Amino acid sequence: MKVICFGELMIRYNPPGYNRFVQTPVMEFNFGGAEANVAVSLAGLGVKSSLVTKLPSHEIGQAAVNILRRYGVETNNIVRGGERVGIYYVEKGAAQRPSKVIYDRKYSAIAMAEKKDFEWDRIFDGADWFHFTGITPALGDNVAEICLEACKTAKEMHIPVSCDLNFRKNLWSSEKAGRIMGGLMPYVDLCIANEEDADKVFGIRAADTDIDKGILNHEGYISVAQQIAERFGCKRVAFTLRGSISASDNDWAGMLYDSKSDETVFSNTYRIHIVDRVGGGDSFGAGLIYAALNGFNLQDSIEFAVAASALKHTIEGDFNFVTADEVNALVKGGGTGRIQR
Amino acid sequence: MKVICFGELMIRYNPPGYNRFVQTPVMEFNFGGAEANVAVSLAGLGVKSSLVTKLPSHEIGQAAVNILRRYGVETNNIVRGGERVGIYYVEKGAAQRPSKVIYDRKYSAIAMAEKKDFEWDRIFDGADWFHFTGITPALGDNVAEICLEACKTAKEMHIPVSCDLNFRKNLWSSEKAGRIMGGLMPYVDLCIANEEDADKVFGIRAADTDIDKGILNHEGYISVAQQIAERFGCKRVAFTLRGSISASDNDWAGMLYDSKSDETVFSNTYRIHIVDRVGGGDSFGAGLIYAALNGFNLQDSIEFAVAASALKHTIEGDFNFVTADEVNALVKGGGTGRIQR
Amino acid sequence: MKVICFGELMIRYNPPGYNRFVQTPVMEFNFGGAEANVAVSLAGLGVKSSLVTKLPSHEIGQAAVNILRRYGVETNNIVRGGERVGIYYVEKGAAQRPSKVIYDRKYSAIAMAEKKDFEWDRIFDGADWFHFTGITPALGDNVAEICLEACKTAKEMHIPVSCDLNFRKNLWSSEKAGRIMGGLMPYVDLCIANEEDADKVFGIRAADTDIDKGILNHEGYISVAQQIAERFGCKRVAFTLRGSISASDNDWAGMLYDSKSDETVFSNTYRIHIVDRVGGGDSFGAGLIYAALNGFNLQDSIEFAVAASALKHTIEGDFNFVTADEVNALVKGGGTGRIQR
Amino acid sequence: MKVICFGELMIRYNPPGYNRFVQTPVMEFNFGGAEANVAVSLAGLGVKSSLVTKLPSHEIGQAAVNILRRYGVETNNIVRGGERVGIYYVEKGAAQRPSKVIYDRKYSAIAMAEKKDFEWDRIFDGADWFHFTGITPALGDNVAEICLEACKTAKEMHIPVSCDLNFRKNLWSSEKAGRIMGGLMPYVDLCIANEEDADKVFGIRAADTDIDKGILNHEGYISVAQQIAERFGCKRVAFTLRGSISASDNDWAGMLYDSKSDETVFSNTYRIHIVDRVGGGDSFGAGLIYAALNGFNLQDSIEFAVAASALKHTIEGDFNFVTADEVNALVKGGGTGRIQR
Amino acid sequence: MKVICFGELMIRYNPPGYNRFVQTPVMEFNFGGAEANVAVSLAGLGVKSSLVTKLPSHEIGQAAVNILRRYGVETNNIVRGGERVGIYYVEKGAAQRPSKVIYDRKYSAIAMAEKKDFEWDRIFDGADWFHFTGITPALGDNVAEICLEACKTAKEMHIPVSCDLNFRKNLWSSEKAGRIMGGLMPYVDLCIANEEDADKVFGIRAADTDIDKGILNHEGYISVAQQIAERFGCKRVAFTLRGSISASDNDWAGMLYDSKSDETVFSNTYRIHIVDRVGGGDSFGAGLIYAALNGFNLQDSIEFAVAASALKHTIEGDFNFVTADEVNALVKGGGTGRIQR
Amino acid sequence: MKVICFGELMIRYNPPGYNRFVQTPVMEFNFGGAEANVAVSLAGLGVKSSLVTKLPSHEIGQAAVNILRRYGVETNNIVRGGERVGIYYVEKGAAQRPSKVIYDRKYSAIAMAEKKDFEWDRIFDGADWFHFTGITPALGDNVAEICLEACKTAKEMHIPVSCDLNFRKNLWSSEKAGRIMGGLMPYVDLCIANEEDADKVFGIRAADTDIDKGILNHEGYISVAQQIAERFGCKRVAFTLRGSISASDNDWAGMLYDSKSDETVFSNTYRIHIVDRVGGGDSFGAGLIYAALNGFNLQDSIEFAVAASALKHTIEGDFNFVTADEVNALVKGGGTGRIQR
Repeated sequence: MKVICFGELMIRYNPPGYNRFVQTPVMEFNFGGAEANVAVSLAGLGVKSSLVTKLPSHEIGQAAVNILRRYGVETNNIVRGGERVGIYYVEKGAAQRPSKVIYDRKYSAIAMAEKKDFEWDRIFDGADWFHFTGITPALGDNVAEICLEACKTAKEMHIPVSCDLNFRKNLWSSEKAGRIMGGLMPYVDLCIANEEDADKVFGIRAADTDIDKGILNHEGYISVAQQIAERFGCKRVAFTLRGSISASDNDWAGMLYDSKSDETVFSNTYRIHIVDRVGGGDSFGAGLIYAALNGFNLQDSIEFAVAASALKHTIEGDFNFVTADEVNALVKGGGTGRIQR
Repeated sequence: MKVICFGELMIRYNPPGYNRFVQTPVMEFNFGGAEANVAVSLAGLGVKSSLVTKLPSHEIGQAAVNILRRYGVETNNIVRGGERVGIYYVEKGAAQRPSKVIYDRKYSAIAMAEKKDFEWDRIFDGADWFHFTGITPALGDNVAEICLEACKTAKEMHIPVSCDLNFRKNLWSSEKAGRIMGGLMPYVDLCIANEEDADKVFGIRAADTDIDKGILNHEGYISVAQQIAERFGCKRVAFTLRGSISASDNDWAGMLYDSKSDETVFSNTYRIHIVDRVGGGDSFGAGLIYAALNGFNLQDSIEFAVAASALKHTIEGDFNFVTADEVNALVKGGGTGRIQR
Repeated sequence: MKVICFGELMIRYNPPGYNRFVQTPVMEFNFGGAEANVAVSLAGLGVKSSLVTKLPSHEIGQAAVNILRRYGVETNNIVRGGERVGIYYVEKGAAQRPSKVIYDRKYSAIAMAEKKDFEWDRIFDGADWFHFTGITPALGDNVAEICLEACKTAKEMHIPVSCDLNFRKNLWSSEKAGRIMGGLMPYVDLCIANEEDADKVFGIRAADTDIDKGILNHEGYISVAQQIAERFGCKRVAFTLRGSISASDNDWAGMLYDSKSDETVFSNTYRIHIVDRVGGGDSFGAGLIYAALNGFNLQDSIEFAVAASALKHTIEGDFNFVTADEVNALVKGGGTGRIQR
Repeated sequence: MKVICFGELMIRYNPPGYNRFVQTPVMEFNFGGAEANVAVSLAGLGVKSSLVTKLPSHEIGQAAVNILRRYGVETNNIVRGGERVGIYYVEKGAAQRPSKVIYDRKYSAIAMAEKKDFEWDRIFDGADWFHFTGITPALGDNVAEICLEACKTAKEMHIPVSCDLNFRKNLWSSEKAGRIMGGLMPYVDLCIANEEDADKVFGIRAADTDIDKGILNHEGYISVAQQIAERFGCKRVAFTLRGSISASDNDWAGMLYDSKSDETVFSNTYRIHIVDRVGGGDSFGAGLIYAALNGFNLQDSIEFAVAASALKHTIEGDFNFVTADEVNALVKGGGTGRIQR
Repeated sequence: MKVICFGELMIRYNPPGYNRFVQTPVMEFNFGGAEANVAVSLAGLGVKSSLVTKLPSHEIGQAAVNILRRYGVETNNIVRGGERVGIYYVEKGAAQRPSKVIYDRKYSAIAMAEKKDFEWDRIFDGADWFHFTGITPALGDNVAEICLEACKTAKEMHIPVSCDLNFRKNLWSSEKAGRIMGGLMPYVDLCIANEEDADKVFGIRAADTDIDKGILNHEGYISVAQQIAERFGCKRVAFTLRGSISASDNDWAGMLYDSKSDETVFSNTYRIHIVDRVGGGDSFGAGLIYAALNGFNLQDSIEFAVAASALKHTIEGDFNFVTADEVNALVKGGGTGRIQR
Repeated sequence: MKVICFGELMIRYNPPGYNRFVQTPVMEFNFGGAEANVAVSLAGLGVKSSLVTKLPSHEIGQAAVNILRRYGVETNNIVRGGERVGIYYVEKGAAQRPSKVIYDRKYSAIAMAEKKDFEWDRIFDGADWFHFTGITPALGDNVAEICLEACKTAKEMHIPVSCDLNFRKNLWSSEKAGRIMGGLMPYVDLCIANEEDADKVFGIRAADTDIDKGILNHEGYISVAQQIAERFGCKRVAFTLRGSISASDNDWAGMLYDSKSDETVFSNTYRIHIVDRVGGGDSFGAGLIYAALNGFNLQDSIEFAVAASALKHTIEGDFNFVTADEVNALVKGGGTGRIQR
């Protein structure tokens, strides 16, 4: 089984520990990006994955390629060229101080990529799944077009497609996001979103839900999922349900809706003391893809995805370094954190 | 607007993370001191501030000057000379283990300073506020005299004066503190204190309050504020209200009393998971000065000061690196710590 | 007063902070081991201690000796020779992700030691207590024999013996552990165990206690202690009572049973936000030995031991760097973590 | 005395020590840039300096401002706005492996700046010197125009102008550099260059000099200086004379030519074991400006500038943290490196 | 083109910088091993390489696999199983203090491997070269047998074989080495050695060469090469020629002998200021293999191999992170270390 | 054999690597002091040593005690009390930039010690040697008196005394040093000095020697030694002979004069690439004491001492972590730094 992910791999610079940007003498030199995070997560779970992107040929670009190789992601679909590796800066929050992300990703190699850089029928040869997020088409009209071509090719080759809406207000407006994503969604089998994406991108919202207050209304979510599935024909719609107590502590759960059976399942809720929450949603997506590829039922799927992503919150960096065994152990009730010798 | 702060800037050596003094191979080389913390905090909030102190002319003294410059504090009122930069060692506590501070500040340049080192009328030229704490006069009789001269000059020049009682038992006895501070308080417009200062310095205490048990009695605090205002003629009296659950978790709130209206306001209470609590009180004082200079009403003043200092607890080191926007966002209810992209 | 501890001192490699094994570029180079932890803990409490072990004569072995010297443990009973310093790798858990320990201790110098390496009557000369744990005899039949000889010599010399059952499934089976430990227990005056040791080693279990769920049944524990005391003639039996909420937060308490009076005491329970839990049980044992050597009564003994080990959970590494004053301060109610200046 | 410097301040990311880009887990978060380096160097020597540039208003931009404040450079002429802080990556070489610099500076705030961002008559008010390098106009035609305006204003206000040719092939071609720099040079009083700049920018070269082989021909350099002075009317022309033995060891000297007297002086040559050579030329320029502002004669000027820049090679990062006393001590013969207590 | 390397991949623990083992609080967690070093070096030069070895299935074993993946080495021929990852400790020397290596590699997974772990005909499918060193058969009789089987299979499949003698006195005696290596050498086409291997393993020595004094006798080396080629039928014999001036500075050169033409070539000699010399010989071997696969002539081969390995001495860790372009630039005379922008 | 050393143990704060004081965010937390360095050096060579000093009872004082214990120095003669641990700051030089030391040692516990703190007859019980340096009496008149008492007691108990002149201009004037040291020297058997001590303290100088230029005149040194021996009756006089090429490279040798035979020996000269030169003289003294206690002849003594101290220059920190075997290996000619496996 092999999953193709398409998106940007950026350098992630973050000060060590809880230092703020203005006080740090050093930055950790990590990498991340929504689709790359999914690819690494899947490789860790034991599923072959390949990232499709573009990276400069210089040593900084090579370091980006190397991080993927290190964690088992195939890199033969990475085009080398262009000038910049995109960058984002992460400052870890605590208690009442939120985490902060500053992007410096414009003009990156993938954002300047051209259609001819990617031959999708060759890329999809032997693939079993295609994943992208709303960030990829937001990188530019050129990338949106490449993304559409990828979706069409996947559909032709009968490869299931998943998409995490991942709305980023710095990259595009709600209006443009709605228009472009509206053109891509018909190709999407599994739609993943968090509590505000559906609203921001498609104006579909859960009634009586106040995100900032962390009030989560189950019925409202079901309604949103149904609307998405209906409007775009998605087979399944999944939500992460984050209850933000503070930047240090979150409740974390998920929901999965199946349009064919009109059935909805909710997962166990974890109270998480956070180590690093960036990439939490991506590890949830990877968990769903893993579950789908392994034929899990609805409830098992959402439990696996939520447990995987709960563990992500305890790991430094964007990537979710967990094995399927570790996720299954948590699903089976090992959340008390007893030491393993 | 410009705030003059008078006090010691010390080297702050702390082991990284939760390491104890006896096990660390390395010390973080930071700086701090009650009045310097206020000055840095104000500069971060966008208010001009200047630290009045004395520092040796060698490179370690220069490093101390540089840290202030870095964070926007004016250093032209710093006298260069003397032999030592004072030092304090901070060991961060966790859970049941309290944080520990060891002082090595005796004989520092400022503690050995002379009256003629500081020309207060020149220093206060163009100033809008004067701030000091009970630590400064505790450094020695010479410094107490300098402090008194500063207070008198400020009063003559119609510059409001704030003072944080900040009792330090290692520097002087309650008896001496009471005597010296008693001579300075008549010049103080805004008196700031924590739960034990008023008792230790002036023998004024809140009935039915057991500090170690974290039982905070609102009525008692009001009574203490009234007594202080009455005895010394302060316009306003402010308290930090810390509920120590453990070294890792605190409740944090504040109270502000206005003597003219005999009105008292209490702030929202924050449950804080602590990154570094040293300097928490100083950032509260800075918040109050900011509020006063910007004409905030009583309730807005205490909410701003408490929110600012709540954020301080999430930042490594003594200094509070937050902007007024960040404080206002917390005041408006953003305490759930959602990531900011 | 002097305590002889017999066991292995290993290198402890752990990634900094919450990094996982697969992502760390660096390992902290610490040392630990159940009996060494007790020895260091006792030295910190002000009791002379000496570790009996075997370590290679090369520089890595010397670094192991040095760490003990640094923290005040006598090293003149350490035999130099053999090839390996045993190793264990610790990955710190958080929230739902458990800590992980990987052992690489086979063929270590102490595991390959011979009877003639240790002259127990000389070693015990001037000693007041002997301590070992179930790990030492588990290192091999040779070491089990040496351990038996040590116990016999101690008994002959009227030196009290304590043993922490410390069952390690990687080192031996329950069956073998039961057989070998069964032969050593008759020499043991103070038996220490955690919630699963008695069951795993001797098949003695507390009714209605589900360890993984953190349900602690006081009556059941009393029954287990009584059975142990009865079967082996131990004077006292002590349990650590850990309530695992998550890898980040634990409840921590202890129980001490006196067979002569058939009296049982339970300690105060601490809610601990964990910095490092490895060595928690060892610091509990050290606290009990300290209490015994200082003639504490039953209740004071268990309170001291539990407070000491609660503090251990807030300290990086295996070793418990706390003084008796610090423990006593916590016992007396200073658990709110107020800063100490 | 105050020196105005105009140019870009970039983030400088470098792996610690001798690590290569592809192996480092962390980057040191420093700052640098040719004109900023001169400004910091001058501030360290005791001369007021101010950097004119543009930096984004976010926290990464603020960190850039802070580094200048820390080292005493005035920042009130920095325009806040734009999107990017330019970046360059430095990999330190050793022995036969050269240092490597990768630029990611396109689209930075200063590179996108507009003429109206800078009011030069206000900026030059009270200034005694203006410095820029060939990098600034190479950032774009807009910046070249701003630079020309600055030069014209300086000339009108009778402020001496220095320019370091600093040819960067990544930024523009020799052809374009020659054209643009040719338009700026008539305003330049002091022209600074290294062994290849004059050739690459103006096609003026020293006969019989093979740069790669480190063969330095004194007569040739004099001829180049004369040609530059003649063509553009510069009062003085200075060269750094670097003899590259390896990436670890260099010979370092300088030459200064005075057109009025047609006199040329050469400095002492230092054999330098290199700590960090980036910024070596900039510290040479700062030394020359310092000498000019202090009225040094020709020989003293070149000795001071070369000694200052020799010391720079022993300091980590771009900036030259040396005082005038330290430079003078080296000029007077203290190059044997005896410890100073 | 693909090169198969067979040998052990160990953890390499070294204190940072010049710290000695007894003083370091931390160890860098790197990996290395003679054959793995060759594989990484080749991947960096652009040649496909694959390491054949055995590593435990736990996370420490996974970290070992990941390092190879990161640097582009194929890992599909790595058998997972066994208990230990072998370890070696490196303490970097300086000036008169030599570097020190302590091995803890006994009982590693590969040292305990069995013949059936490796199917050589499948492994060699598609391979163009086979490389091993004298360390591999020294791990144990079992591994020596596996090695012999590999050699025989390679020969049958017409795959050229290279072997670096790499005598390690800690692993076996000269006598045993001579016997075992004598049985393997008939399969070896390219024999690589340093100044003492041929003597220690086969008793073949260069007349009038005093290794410790760094006196290198060219004629003697030629004679040794001829003897080796004659005795075992090797096509080519290569030597590294190290002149140890101190632990900080070495002269470095190489020699290559071709038996068919009886021709010998010597390379340029580099004076190297050392960053890390471990792996220097391995990078030389990789350079020779690269040259052979690319059809270089004798002189070009030795120049490429020596330049590649000269660069290795400037890089932290065992691995040689250089591209073919970088090596060629040095061969062409770029050894003056001018900065590359 | 046991050596008693009397002097101050200070905290040594140094920035990592080559960072200057004004740029470092962190300080390495080491310890050092002339006599402590000798004690640690001797313990490493296998000779029992004990430091006599006074240190505060708080945790920073404890950390100082621990460092001695770690490296095998006896600490039972350390009086606990007083307020400060003295501090010195070390900034490592390179090439033309000298190392810099800033002292903050005034008012330390030992500098404020009283005569009654030390019972010298008890301290010297079982001792074979007494060592102090000119720094100890320079700490204050009180300490000078204690030192005199120690010397007298040693003499009475027939314990040989060594003294390193170690003139420190920050602690006292030449005039006072001459007077106080003149009173102590009659008790000294072995006098150790560097190139300027004899001149600065006693006005005894070597003709035609220019220290700053590194010109060492052997005849002159012999004359100085003879004068010292004659004036004070010392049995032996030793000099370190440092040729400062730069802060990175030194020539290092020694001279030993025996008054009875009027014989002088000079050692081999080492060209040292320096890692850390602080403590170089102390390790030389330790080598001489080791040689004396082991009955080495004159030439062997100076060779051992110089080789030991040459190695010191390659080790981070003040302490010389070398074994007698390592020193002997260097004496025997192993200075080429070949790797030891």
